[in-house]
Amino acid sequence: MKLTILGCHSATPRWDANPTAQVLEVKGHLFLIDCAEGTQVQLRRFKVKFSRLKHIFISHLHGDHFFGLVGLISTFRLLGREAELHVHGPKGIKEAILLQLKLGKSYTNYPLYFHELESKEPQVVFEDEKLSITTIPLDHRVYTNGFLFQEKLGERSLHIEKARELNVEMSYYRKIKQGEDAISKDGKRIKNELITFDPPPAKSYAYCSDTAYFPQLVPQIENATALYHEATFLDKDHHLAEKTKHSTAKEAAVIAKKAKVGTLILGHYSGRYSSTESFKTEAQTIFPNVQLAEDGKVFEL
Amino acid sequence: MKLTILGCHSATPRWDANPTAQVLEVKGHLFLIDCAEGTQVQLRRFKVKFSRLKHIFISHLHGDHFFGLVGLISTFRLLGREAELHVHGPKGIKEAILLQLKLGKSYTNYPLYFHELESKEPQVVFEDEKLSITTIPLDHRVYTNGFLFQEKLGERSLHIEKARELNVEMSYYRKIKQGEDAISKDGKRIKNELITFDPPPAKSYAYCSDTAYFPQLVPQIENATALYHEATFLDKDHHLAEKTKHSTAKEAAVIAKKAKVGTLILGHYSGRYSSTESFKTEAQTIFPNVQLAEDGKVFEL
Repeated sequence: MKLTILGCHSATPRWDANPTAQVLEVKGHLFLIDCAEGTQVQLRRFKVKFSRLKHIFISHLHGDHFFGLVGLISTFRLLGREAELHVHGPKGIKEAILLQLKLGKSYTNYPLYFHELESKEPQVVFEDEKLSITTIPLDHRVYTNGFLFQEKLGERSLHIEKARELNVEMSYYRKIKQGEDAISKDGKRIKNELITFDPPPAKSYAYCSDTAYFPQLVPQIENATALYHEATFLDKDHHLAEKTKHSTAKEAAVIAKKAKVGTLILGHYSGRYSSTESFKTEAQTIFPNVQLAEDGKVFEL
Repeated sequence: MKLTILGCHSATPRWDANPTAQVLEVKGHLFLIDCAEGTQVQLRRFKVKFSRLKHIFISHLHGDHFFGLVGLISTFRLLGREAELHVHGPKGIKEAILLQLKLGKSYTNYPLYFHELESKEPQVVFEDEKLSITTIPLDHRVYTNGFLFQEKLGERSLHIEKARELNVEMSYYRKIKQGEDAISKDGKRIKNELITFDPPPAKSYAYCSDTAYFPQLVPQIENATALYHEATFLDKDHHLAEKTKHSTAKEAAVIAKKAKVGTLILGHYSGRYSSTESFKTEAQTIFPNVQLAEDGKVFEL
């Protein structure tokens, strides 16, 4: 899993502080998560091959998470895109995008599908043999979902020497990797665990932005490899977090600790703070493994 | 008149090539003309005091001229704006903006007025005692207007020594500047032109983008101090200009020549050309006084 932060600041876009967008590369897919104004420029700037994007996930319909979407969709048309594009986001997103394309007489030439969300329960929004993506209902001023990207456990690795030693037919190898027992050339049943290793652990990435402190999400993201959790404010301004339904760095860390995640990545910083270092310091009083998102930073999970 | 180019490239925004937006400062006003994605960042980058903006003029509803508007309107709200904002643009613009604000539950706290345009005849869209702004109907793939900013002729300048010499009462000075004759202390009528100079010439700026070659606009912009005319293509690609209803540099120059403008400013360059110098060279074969727009360039007219 490779996570590229395109923007990780809240509210208004500035020259050196882009609002939310990130790209997750996992199991051969490239997913865009949120798409603030300027995202298409950031994709070019950080040399993301964005023609590979097929699915875009929008957490909520505040401008700093979705005002760049219509431009990106239009740019795909101008670049001659032919591949399908799927947009997953809150109900209303389809009308907002299509109205603007209609006004510009600029409907896409490529197939554009909207998958509108309105459930307050987690929903699987994408699934293939290697991966699933599930919404994480959040608590914000408008209807908002995070997204949980979960790799599926891969095939077991064959212990080839042991299989040969036990006279296992090669024709069984495929099924053995899928966890089945084998039969040796002399007719004996060989237990799967004797001739295989566990597959590499399945990774998962939880994206939670924007949200008030919302411990109800903890069971869903337990043991995630990495959690991106918004931290708009520091604890000293927790009244602002409460008022605007955002989180503090400390609250993000409490969620990370409760959920026993591997790494906590903080972002969505308010522009009122001159440096982001204090977010890390504050979170680390609760949870040790904290990283700070930065525009252009790449996390290999 | 001071014109600041925020972006002057066509189609998709890139890191070093912003789509259309410009700011015109004239007679104490600051006007924004078009508002592509990224315009608010360009306003900050070039240190334009954009809280002073009260009127925004949108030529047409293609993304590279208006996708930044909703973000700018939202940013004004976040910055606590209280002053009125007037948006002048094609019919449909109000619905597009308000729908997005509604979806984000982000209606502005300041008064926001839309003045929707649908006439194919020139219309006065702003007027005060020093200035008028009129639409310039253009010929593009969607309904499009340019805008003509015309200063009004100021007061005549008083020839103070002459007025004293001719015994003109000071109480007449105000009316004399407005063009009236005066009466001297000994009761004689003094012709206005004897005691005044002509006011400085009224300047005008014509913004014409996007449009196919459209000589019908010439009478409206005759003798303009400066004309910004789109030049998306070079003459060698004139078939593309015809197909997409854009202009070539040569065509822009023909318009400038026919209209006898002072300066021709070219912009809206297609990304297919590696340099913009050829636009100038081509236009200068027809019309000598050509300037190239560049992001961040300031023209004092």
